[in-house]
Amino acid sequence: MRHGQSQANHDNIFTGWTDVPLTDKGIAQGIAVGKALKATGIHFSDANTSYMSRAIVTTNIILDEIDQLYIPVHKTWRLNERHYGALSGRNKAVVKEKVGADQLHRWRRGYSEVPPKLTTRQHDRRYDRLGIKMPLSESLAMTQKRLLPFWEDQVAPRLLDGKNQLIVAHGSSLRALIKYLDQIPDDQIDKVEVPNGKPIWYKFDNHLRIVNKTFITMDGE
Amino acid sequence: MRHGQSQANHDNIFTGWTDVPLTDKGIAQGIAVGKALKATGIHFSDANTSYMSRAIVTTNIILDEIDQLYIPVHKTWRLNERHYGALSGRNKAVVKEKVGADQLHRWRRGYSEVPPKLTTRQHDRRYDRLGIKMPLSESLAMTQKRLLPFWEDQVAPRLLDGKNQLIVAHGSSLRALIKYLDQIPDDQIDKVEVPNGKPIWYKFDNHLRIVNKTFITMDGE
Repeated sequence: MRHGQSQANHDNIFTGWTDVPLTDKGIAQGIAVGKALKATGIHFSDANTSYMSRAIVTTNIILDEIDQLYIPVHKTWRLNERHYGALSGRNKAVVKEKVGADQLHRWRRGYSEVPPKLTTRQHDRRYDRLGIKMPLSESLAMTQKRLLPFWEDQVAPRLLDGKNQLIVAHGSSLRALIKYLDQIPDDQIDKVEVPNGKPIWYKFDNHLRIVNKTFITMDGE
Repeated sequence: MRHGQSQANHDNIFTGWTDVPLTDKGIAQGIAVGKALKATGIHFSDANTSYMSRAIVTTNIILDEIDQLYIPVHKTWRLNERHYGALSGRNKAVVKEKVGADQLHRWRRGYSEVPPKLTTRQHDRRYDRLGIKMPLSESLAMTQKRLLPFWEDQVAPRLLDGKNQLIVAHGSSLRALIKYLDQIPDDQIDKVEVPNGKPIWYKFDNHLRIVNKTFITMDGE
């Protein structure tokens, strides 16, 4: 699932790797998802999330609601939102006015389009390990490339062991994952949107083929 | 540090391995500790906590306040509160009236005294791994015995690597740890109390000898 509404979602701002808090609505979405998951009776073995507060806090809220706070929470930069480069922190409507709707759509929803790069590398302790590989900007394809090692080496083996996995990530990092899981062609991924706080439930067989894919129904839906 | 005030702390009830939530005061204590830790500028490499919600939520609150939500949080039953056996869920004043102040004090603060045992083993998914080793009741000595492997194998090696460690645990599991670290004799440990939400800051040399031990000062103290 995608984290609850963040302040930047609310303000219509490109976020990427900028660490922004949830809004009150975002917190309420986390609680609602927790209640819906609790109603399914599912037991998770692990939770997996990014290095970004909006995803981690959403994870913590859900685990509290389902009384499973004690499970391991694996945090990784590989589940981070796509890095939006020089667009980070800019208002989407203002960018649209400047570059036009088509270019904006390619940057936001295309597969290979790389947003304008940052001119200097940001310093942040949590990314020190990346050194000169610290992204200056990422296309969806680049996001998928750095995300998949976490899926292949961490999530997939645990699923094959029969362990239910919760993933709380971001609009574009989840689009990259869904593109992989659902084998969506490059020219079709621009039609995929992942809403805040609406979990998708995948069931896999023992060769990790998708058996079933549904949305979890929220209270009142 | 010990978690913030729990509902059972507030109600003067023996808790042990019963999973109870924080009170509003407990949440406020977590926030206050976070602000105090933030003022020190300390960077943690890891947080370590128990399987109990009151400790995990306190940890999450602190990490949010100090903008370090992204660090690993290691959760272990070995940092759990001492198991209070058949006293769990009972009011301390009522027990005192029944058994007398001396017996109550020995159960609460003594080193070797084992509280009355449960007659049946509780079932809880998070403790399945313990099998017939699932405690029915624990003395402080038993608590220390099961806690130390986590210290020796997880916390101490990371400290020796120069990595600052946050530990959020419980009144008696922390008394067991402090007894070990400070080399307090068996007949002196009944004088040690660990208040909710008042972090103790240990500094060690490269042989894990204590260089300094202070309380973190809270705002307004």
